[in-house]
Amino acid sequence: MFAHNKRLQYTVRVTESNPGLANLLLEQFGGPQGELAAACRYFTQALSEDDPGRKDMLMDIATEELSHLEVIGHLVAMLNKGAKGPLAEGIDSEAEMYRKINGAGNDSHTTQVLYGAGTPLINSAGVPWTAAYIDTIGEPTADLRSNIAAEARAKIVYERLINCTDDPGVKEALTFLMTREVAHQKSFEKALYSIEPNFPPGKLPGDPRFASVYFNMSQGEGDMRGSWNQGEQWMFVSDRNEQSAVDGGDGLASVQLKPEEMTALDMLAKRTQSNPTLDPPTGAELGAAPGTDQGKSLKGKTITP
Amino acid sequence: MFAHNKRLQYTVRVTESNPGLANLLLEQFGGPQGELAAACRYFTQALSEDDPGRKDMLMDIATEELSHLEVIGHLVAMLNKGAKGPLAEGIDSEAEMYRKINGAGNDSHTTQVLYGAGTPLINSAGVPWTAAYIDTIGEPTADLRSNIAAEARAKIVYERLINCTDDPGVKEALTFLMTREVAHQKSFEKALYSIEPNFPPGKLPGDPRFASVYFNMSQGEGDMRGSWNQGEQWMFVSDRNEQSAVDGGDGLASVQLKPEEMTALDMLAKRTQSNPTLDPPTGAELGAAPGTDQGKSLKGKTITP
Amino acid sequence: MFAHNKRLQYTVRVTESNPGLANLLLEQFGGPQGELAAACRYFTQALSEDDPGRKDMLMDIATEELSHLEVIGHLVAMLNKGAKGPLAEGIDSEAEMYRKINGAGNDSHTTQVLYGAGTPLINSAGVPWTAAYIDTIGEPTADLRSNIAAEARAKIVYERLINCTDDPGVKEALTFLMTREVAHQKSFEKALYSIEPNFPPGKLPGDPRFASVYFNMSQGEGDMRGSWNQGEQWMFVSDRNEQSAVDGGDGLASVQLKPEEMTALDMLAKRTQSNPTLDPPTGAELGAAPGTDQGKSLKGKTITP
Amino acid sequence: MFAHNKRLQYTVRVTESNPGLANLLLEQFGGPQGELAAACRYFTQALSEDDPGRKDMLMDIATEELSHLEVIGHLVAMLNKGAKGPLAEGIDSEAEMYRKINGAGNDSHTTQVLYGAGTPLINSAGVPWTAAYIDTIGEPTADLRSNIAAEARAKIVYERLINCTDDPGVKEALTFLMTREVAHQKSFEKALYSIEPNFPPGKLPGDPRFASVYFNMSQGEGDMRGSWNQGEQWMFVSDRNEQSAVDGGDGLASVQLKPEEMTALDMLAKRTQSNPTLDPPTGAELGAAPGTDQGKSLKGKTITP
Amino acid sequence: MFAHNKRLQYTVRVTESNPGLANLLLEQFGGPQGELAAACRYFTQALSEDDPGRKDMLMDIATEELSHLEVIGHLVAMLNKGAKGPLAEGIDSEAEMYRKINGAGNDSHTTQVLYGAGTPLINSAGVPWTAAYIDTIGEPTADLRSNIAAEARAKIVYERLINCTDDPGVKEALTFLMTREVAHQKSFEKALYSIEPNFPPGKLPGDPRFASVYFNMSQGEGDMRGSWNQGEQWMFVSDRNEQSAVDGGDGLASVQLKPEEMTALDMLAKRTQSNPTLDPPTGAELGAAPGTDQGKSLKGKTITP
Amino acid sequence: MFAHNKRLQYTVRVTESNPGLANLLLEQFGGPQGELAAACRYFTQALSEDDPGRKDMLMDIATEELSHLEVIGHLVAMLNKGAKGPLAEGIDSEAEMYRKINGAGNDSHTTQVLYGAGTPLINSAGVPWTAAYIDTIGEPTADLRSNIAAEARAKIVYERLINCTDDPGVKEALTFLMTREVAHQKSFEKALYSIEPNFPPGKLPGDPRFASVYFNMSQGEGDMRGSWNQGEQWMFVSDRNEQSAVDGGDGLASVQLKPEEMTALDMLAKRTQSNPTLDPPTGAELGAAPGTDQGKSLKGKTITP
Repeated sequence: MFAHNKRLQYTVRVTESNPGLANLLLEQFGGPQGELAAACRYFTQALSEDDPGRKDMLMDIATEELSHLEVIGHLVAMLNKGAKGPLAEGIDSEAEMYRKINGAGNDSHTTQVLYGAGTPLINSAGVPWTAAYIDTIGEPTADLRSNIAAEARAKIVYERLINCTDDPGVKEALTFLMTREVAHQKSFEKALYSIEPNFPPGKLPGDPRFASVYFNMSQGEGDMRGSWNQGEQWMFVSDRNEQSAVDGGDGLASVQLKPEEMTALDMLAKRTQSNPTLDPPTGAELGAAPGTDQGKSLKGKTITP
Repeated sequence: MFAHNKRLQYTVRVTESNPGLANLLLEQFGGPQGELAAACRYFTQALSEDDPGRKDMLMDIATEELSHLEVIGHLVAMLNKGAKGPLAEGIDSEAEMYRKINGAGNDSHTTQVLYGAGTPLINSAGVPWTAAYIDTIGEPTADLRSNIAAEARAKIVYERLINCTDDPGVKEALTFLMTREVAHQKSFEKALYSIEPNFPPGKLPGDPRFASVYFNMSQGEGDMRGSWNQGEQWMFVSDRNEQSAVDGGDGLASVQLKPEEMTALDMLAKRTQSNPTLDPPTGAELGAAPGTDQGKSLKGKTITP
Repeated sequence: MFAHNKRLQYTVRVTESNPGLANLLLEQFGGPQGELAAACRYFTQALSEDDPGRKDMLMDIATEELSHLEVIGHLVAMLNKGAKGPLAEGIDSEAEMYRKINGAGNDSHTTQVLYGAGTPLINSAGVPWTAAYIDTIGEPTADLRSNIAAEARAKIVYERLINCTDDPGVKEALTFLMTREVAHQKSFEKALYSIEPNFPPGKLPGDPRFASVYFNMSQGEGDMRGSWNQGEQWMFVSDRNEQSAVDGGDGLASVQLKPEEMTALDMLAKRTQSNPTLDPPTGAELGAAPGTDQGKSLKGKTITP
Repeated sequence: MFAHNKRLQYTVRVTESNPGLANLLLEQFGGPQGELAAACRYFTQALSEDDPGRKDMLMDIATEELSHLEVIGHLVAMLNKGAKGPLAEGIDSEAEMYRKINGAGNDSHTTQVLYGAGTPLINSAGVPWTAAYIDTIGEPTADLRSNIAAEARAKIVYERLINCTDDPGVKEALTFLMTREVAHQKSFEKALYSIEPNFPPGKLPGDPRFASVYFNMSQGEGDMRGSWNQGEQWMFVSDRNEQSAVDGGDGLASVQLKPEEMTALDMLAKRTQSNPTLDPPTGAELGAAPGTDQGKSLKGKTITP
Repeated sequence: MFAHNKRLQYTVRVTESNPGLANLLLEQFGGPQGELAAACRYFTQALSEDDPGRKDMLMDIATEELSHLEVIGHLVAMLNKGAKGPLAEGIDSEAEMYRKINGAGNDSHTTQVLYGAGTPLINSAGVPWTAAYIDTIGEPTADLRSNIAAEARAKIVYERLINCTDDPGVKEALTFLMTREVAHQKSFEKALYSIEPNFPPGKLPGDPRFASVYFNMSQGEGDMRGSWNQGEQWMFVSDRNEQSAVDGGDGLASVQLKPEEMTALDMLAKRTQSNPTLDPPTGAELGAAPGTDQGKSLKGKTITP
Repeated sequence: MFAHNKRLQYTVRVTESNPGLANLLLEQFGGPQGELAAACRYFTQALSEDDPGRKDMLMDIATEELSHLEVIGHLVAMLNKGAKGPLAEGIDSEAEMYRKINGAGNDSHTTQVLYGAGTPLINSAGVPWTAAYIDTIGEPTADLRSNIAAEARAKIVYERLINCTDDPGVKEALTFLMTREVAHQKSFEKALYSIEPNFPPGKLPGDPRFASVYFNMSQGEGDMRGSWNQGEQWMFVSDRNEQSAVDGGDGLASVQLKPEEMTALDMLAKRTQSNPTLDPPTGAELGAAPGTDQGKSLKGKTITP
């Protein structure tokens, strides 16, 4: 069960209203790398986790992320607070209002007109949050790696936001939130590496013929070698012929069809064949300007459909 | 520039049509952990990457993932091939057709009616692929971790698919695809760790007061300790009072408003106050059945709006 | 700040694994009327609310909805628990596994293959949760009505789920969750009606000429009158002429353009005019079977583009 | 059947082109609270409604909303009209064109480049309309409440738009549209309250133990009482112990598993255990800068995987 | 199999950084009419195509579109390149940074903060690419028409972009990409018209009673005739009575229900009837301001629920 | 303005309830090729169209498509009608209800539990309708082609649905709807070809060097020639060298950066370089099982971060 304490995890002190900055901060509220995504990722993992240590840790961190969602949400709310009244109460002139919400340095018109200068679960472009952002798949050797990556991404987005504001209270709260991502990443790393082994993830072994091959698929000036494709463990394959049909087969796709499936397919093929022996007049030619190249194959032809 | 060779990277041999299995395999074609997601993730990173080694590797692997998209796509196409004709040509009785696309063990009706037994970019539930699945943010210490995690997830989904089919040709091709995810994960690990240092990701240091704290947010029977929250590096905080307002402030959110912002806000507050001293009759009470609890506070009242 | 207690708000006791039922219950976990939607709706309202009573109530109920999300999530997790192992560990035969996840009465294949029999934030059709479900707009006389409606909808979906299961533990927990929606609706009604006045919502008065008119737009057998369109307060308008251009104008749309805008528009109009005096041969006619109706206007014509 | 009359329901007279304002007005065309959402909400309810009075009313109002969609669409079209030509015909210099569509006070670049200064079904942020906005669930005591709330929201968004423009023709048409939302809300209220009883919605009674409880989930300075949680009808519960496991059970989640399910689960648990007795070196430590805190637990360790 | 050559299909030479222009160009990278959509459309068609000529052509063009995706992607990457460093490295002052990403003429804040000045698969409004843009349905007489239309649309969006930039290198590369859409359209036209017949698409004949009727559904001043509704082949129907129930039936919808279905429906109808003979007090009336019109039907009434 | 007549355009007579078939029919109600998409496509074009003939035609057909949406919606409603009561009124046993909505041949559980056996704007997979389906871009030579293609697609989906049902009333109504798509396609073809010229679409000429080139990008066994790439008008390019850098440049991407941009980029590059001369121990190696290949490069190494 969740309980709520009215004190925030981190005090929020904002110097002045700034709806444009509020809009940027939405990235960490309703954006793909934001706190709702984090909370939902760990909470859903916790629910179906059976390992007691991991379940406890996931719920600890999910709960903290909800508390961070509350902190970043209050930053947005405070930055928008001065904007809440004028539009709702209609006290500015219309031209002034229009200028305020559409002005340079302030892409907040959607937040204001649609969401009333509130704290919507959208990112800074106005895109609603979606659970498509959540990559939980229910296998800890994969999910913990997803969590580690997610914390790294969130850390970076906070870093960029910090670089965009000089409001000391905003900066300080963002720094706290950024720092906590680092701490969470460390916990997830520990939990991953205390699964032994954890690589390759899952249970099925790979096919040894292909597990240490590096296919040099992109060729030309700029080709480089490094530990990711060179060294004892790698077989490096550049020959285009050895990159295709690597199983030694013909590289084709086939399926065995039943006679009645074959018959139906033949009917379909016949009905819809694009006859390569034909050079038909086309809609493009009908529509081309007289005398242009495009129209010339049709010029003077008598159509007898 | 991309070039295409008609030979697949791995030969596809399917034993018989099976639209239900085709539908499951869509997870790795148009699903969140599938090959389009992989190809797009690495391709977009490659485009804006300036590090020559990483750029080359990303384009190598992106190109291979496109080739995998082609392999998994041909598996789907072959499994659906027997189903393409009958619906298009109308050669089954309607009842038979209905049974075929809606039968037990075969959730392929959407694929067939909407997509003509083709290879749509949807997952096995019919949800269209979305770039919201892509978590690239343009910082290699984060993106490489995202790639590592993505390969781990894809490996697992292939593993599950392999566990759901006994068609040997399908199993073999899926095993190849699964194995390559392992190889790619190894390359991304190498590329990540040849950035020194790579942790914490990004540039800004965290606030040392909070970088090694573990907040025990979820409490009760089942609390556990492990390397993720215990040991020399962790400060473990269970006291609820020390979990909130950790900056030492009052844990409240505040902003300094201009007088005219304040005035507008006051007007808004006054107009929309939910007066706590009032016990108003409500719509619920109006709508409750006579004599029920819900209605009683309204009973016999005279309304004088 | 949120805190978490490992005891659920309501004890979850499930009789046996049932992934098909788990899939249905996802409606109230990651579906549009589910608990995440409820929690997010009230939480976002609470964050930017300035009225102290309403803010407190919204956070109380948001927190409870999070606790409900945990209860419904555990119901799903328990119903899926027996399914977690076999696919991950590959201990069933492949045919058996295929039958299990694709069988009649069990639309759980996506949940199992993609999400590992976990608790994904999707609805029962597999559609990821989206903040597009949240209708908060930051005006309490509207938002409270949205909350009232949302509680009514959630109550109904729980009712339907209860009608689909005879597992007594599931039924009991669902009944608790359903009941709480009723209680929350009552709170929101009280908060709405303690705003005086709360109708019409917002501040601007309507145009009195149109505020009490009912336009009978759908006509024919079956037209009915009732309190929604008849009685002292309504002006009922059936005459089609009085339904259009109700302002007394010409019912047309116009804008005053600058000369250079006019010029550009004229160029565009001229370039793209569909000339009504022309009966051109078309692509459809080119493509029609010889001798059919569709082709006849083209027959024998000489095309001179 | 629908018929169309070329006269609009309300005359649209726009003073001058203003693509920036057009963009804002898209909120009520293709936005979540806009006219397409309204029309679709009532139309879908009408189709499956069996109550003759309600069906008639729903179709009346759906038809009117379509007519409003046409009015707001024409407002957008007129405001964009002057912008249609220059980009299509390429008559401005490129720099001038760039400035026009990207200028301050005018976030119309997407509408112009992608949609040709037309009337796309997007909101003011460019997000395509989605039926996820529609909350119809097929139970009138819920749907009518949803309709009442939707009308209230639409009224407010119109109010905000009116506050952003001083074009008298735009203002007047928006006021008409706003006013009609008020009238529709009144009709829906009448239809709801002529269902007796209509509260609680649906058929199943709630559990009387929980229907009048208010859980004080958010605590701390700022706790308030009001009619929404105090008075004769409410039982107010603040004690955290009485808020969890309210059924009197242990507050845990359990399911009875079959032996073979248990076996598979044990295999999974063993394979993926995060061993709490281990303090493993991790990827974070590998990647940390030498001498930093993060790396210290790894320093000097010999790794023997 | 795909192979990659590091040389682009077209050389990209950009004069100077311009993140605002980069943002516009995203329309053809991750927008609905862009190159990813094109590549995916033709690639998915190629996979399940059995006609050898068409399959080859579709894969040729899909591969070229991928190469175009790479060209437009590099245009975006080069235009963003100067913006990559400052935000990541934090070398501008915060105020300068804020101004840079939020400035007039530059709607690039989302691209920069969320995507690190990279090449995300979004359009110029920030909306993630979705496979809902792909209209492939697996029938060539429809799909080829979809391809023709898609090429036409892409051609136009390129044209608009060309009209927005005076950077000669950008202009030249865009012109190449635009031109190739024209060439592709011609190929698709040829492939369509070498299917004989190709109109009407598919196999089932239409009902001859309705195949050549034009219903004049929109009436009033402005009605026009042209080859699309006049001439030998058209039957033009303006009489409203002849536009409905065109089958000669009653124009109603009916279904034969089983007795038990009827019974359940009657229960539902009774429970949820909106009683037309009742004028109930409503929530709107409860909430209206005293003395206003809206409240008057309730005034002085004694409520006895 | 729209007006509604209670008689449908085509009489709907359904033989018996069939929620599974209702679910399939949703493809043409709320699916991508369905009637809402059609109505919205033409309606939005009509609104911003200035050509009087085309505007009239577009509104005629948009209005008819709305009337078709009503017909297909009533088909769905009738097929679901028998299912509405039992779940709402709870008159079946729970096991019977579960079987009904989850049974073989009937994928209607989402429609029933979430939407109350109504007519939701989703497709047969449960995916909500989205305006991302609409491809209108505001240029008639493109939009009319999009309309032609859309009618062709809708015709085919109706054809498939007709092949799945033997209910004569359903078949008949579907055939009417299918036929009308053919008629609409003819009108759009006429309107397109009465624009002279209409190809290439738009205004800017293509670059003549590239307008008639066919790049043979996919090579290998199966290469074919046909009118789409052979004949007088085509230059066919198979040589891989002539397919890249076709402008004669170096095929590279470049941008001119300012010194300060260069500096920041250098800092970024240095900080995030993946050093190719290093073979670092990685997380994968840490996590690999002892003695396996994956772990060997780390074995026995002393880590000194």
